[in-house]
Amino acid sequence: MNIAILFGGSSFEHEISIVSAITMKKVLKRSTLTYIFVTPQREFYLIDTGKINSKLFSSGEYKKSKQLFLKKGGFFTESMFGSKKVSFDVALNLIHGRDGEDGKISSLMEFFSIDFISPRMEASALSYNKLYTKFLAQSLGVKTVAYEYLSKNDERKISMDYPVIVKPVRLGSSIGVSIVRAKDELDYALDVAFEYDTDVIVEPFIEGVKEYNQAGCYTDRWELSIIEEPHKEEFLDFEKKYMDFSRDSQVLSADISTEIESKIQECFKKIYNPLFNGSIIRCDFFVVEGEVLLNEINPIPGSMANYLFSDFEGMVERVSKNLPKEQSITVDYQYIHSIQSAKGKA
Amino acid sequence: MNIAILFGGSSFEHEISIVSAITMKKVLKRSTLTYIFVTPQREFYLIDTGKINSKLFSSGEYKKSKQLFLKKGGFFTESMFGSKKVSFDVALNLIHGRDGEDGKISSLMEFFSIDFISPRMEASALSYNKLYTKFLAQSLGVKTVAYEYLSKNDERKISMDYPVIVKPVRLGSSIGVSIVRAKDELDYALDVAFEYDTDVIVEPFIEGVKEYNQAGCYTDRWELSIIEEPHKEEFLDFEKKYMDFSRDSQVLSADISTEIESKIQECFKKIYNPLFNGSIIRCDFFVVEGEVLLNEINPIPGSMANYLFSDFEGMVERVSKNLPKEQSITVDYQYIHSIQSAKGKA
Repeated sequence: MNIAILFGGSSFEHEISIVSAITMKKVLKRSTLTYIFVTPQREFYLIDTGKINSKLFSSGEYKKSKQLFLKKGGFFTESMFGSKKVSFDVALNLIHGRDGEDGKISSLMEFFSIDFISPRMEASALSYNKLYTKFLAQSLGVKTVAYEYLSKNDERKISMDYPVIVKPVRLGSSIGVSIVRAKDELDYALDVAFEYDTDVIVEPFIEGVKEYNQAGCYTDRWELSIIEEPHKEEFLDFEKKYMDFSRDSQVLSADISTEIESKIQECFKKIYNPLFNGSIIRCDFFVVEGEVLLNEINPIPGSMANYLFSDFEGMVERVSKNLPKEQSITVDYQYIHSIQSAKGKA
Repeated sequence: MNIAILFGGSSFEHEISIVSAITMKKVLKRSTLTYIFVTPQREFYLIDTGKINSKLFSSGEYKKSKQLFLKKGGFFTESMFGSKKVSFDVALNLIHGRDGEDGKISSLMEFFSIDFISPRMEASALSYNKLYTKFLAQSLGVKTVAYEYLSKNDERKISMDYPVIVKPVRLGSSIGVSIVRAKDELDYALDVAFEYDTDVIVEPFIEGVKEYNQAGCYTDRWELSIIEEPHKEEFLDFEKKYMDFSRDSQVLSADISTEIESKIQECFKKIYNPLFNGSIIRCDFFVVEGEVLLNEINPIPGSMANYLFSDFEGMVERVSKNLPKEQSITVDYQYIHSIQSAKGKA
């Protein structure tokens, strides 16, 4: 199968998307990969799979590659001799953060009729925004950590006890996130978070909380990964996250009871189905006093969470054969015809 | 000002979008209009403003117009002599239903850096889906009509009393909507709604309920329209809606108390601010026993609800001068540089 990897994007996570994309070479071994780079200025370049490495981007050398243009049905090169379509079977959206996770790339793929693996628009809008994720979870009967919501112009007052964790609502990879241990640190943490976003959520910081990651998708059946207990520092900063985005070998299952395991799986399925059809996502859960709480949805997880699956490549193929279809709409202009004939009679 | 009117789209409301677009000629008199038609197959055509009429589309004659292509910064014509940008100051998204209201057009405009008047992506995702509108209203402290939610594969059972109204969650213009007076009619109404959507909401049908429409936007100040009490049949079917989409002259204010008026205005502002910045929307409210309930958000109202404003054209100009700006993101490749130097040292 020929898989187009879309990566980069106009995002604070542009650089780790490059790391994720390069990692795919190690895990999608049977497939032909077509690398399509989205620059920070949102131009498209076709990157030679044989030559891809991180320096190609940091040096700006990628600009020597062929530029691509989006049109009906695909990406095209353009030259004096006309335009030529870049051939692939499916696009894999690997753009972390803005553009990739907020629904823009999904909109582009749907609008231009390109088959793609990614959460669709609605799923993106709800999972990219941590506040909306809370609404979604609530409506599906999935418990979440308690939270308060603050917008940039709101009074900077919270009612929960310290320590708390402050998060910009729209970013991943721990960017702009702070732990606040006392009231006099809140202001600075909010300054940091509001650097990145107009809205934040504040949650209680639960010292030593048990965290578990579950990835998966629905193809013609449920394909759930093993559950991992990530070995974290207090929480991962951006530098340390490099490990996550370049991981390519399978890890061990967390040591948890079958009861907790099935609770986590059940929550994952509730969140996923059917909103996330066509995508491979990772959900991060907390377990507090035997109760499973959704912490975050990672709609485009680092290196697609490949390290949690025993047959990642096979699964990618099965997802691509079970993509959700857009409803077909026929416009027959009956309505306009009837207005015209009504006018004609008048 | 030169305003590009985007209309048509791959939508059940394609034809009434054409009616809305043509109406703009009568209400945007000072402006130069650049008509960009989006075909049901999602191709773009530049339509001659002098020649626009509904027959141009129903006859297929529009295909003789110049085809346009979306690229960084705008819409372009392409020929043997290169590509040429179509010049305008701002695009007005007038595509009702899918593509226009679901966030696709907004995604395209943002991605390709085109100034546009329309709800942005998040606002679109939340207002296009009537279930998510309920979440949004709840979170903002705006009351809504009670509801039950049914997905296509759910058991067809509701617990509220009849009569009820069944609505596909993602459509406007009353498409697929039915009033159900007794249990034995529910199945047929659901069949109709599920023709158009995978999900429906069911609400109590309140006989003779008072309905009021409030349109508006925030420019450098609040610009709220008069409040109209629409004169409706039981509810508007698709044919009767033609009246709404071709309206071009101002109507009279509803006869309501100042108390209800300010309650409606307050609810409108809560919903709008700041999520809908950059757009002109209409919210439809019910008043039940002195209480204001949000019925629906119309993110792209028929003919932009121009008939509710005394200075519609001036307002469009002010919106275009107060569009929300995307956060600028600079990618400096510091992170990749640091990985490379770490590797070099190892």
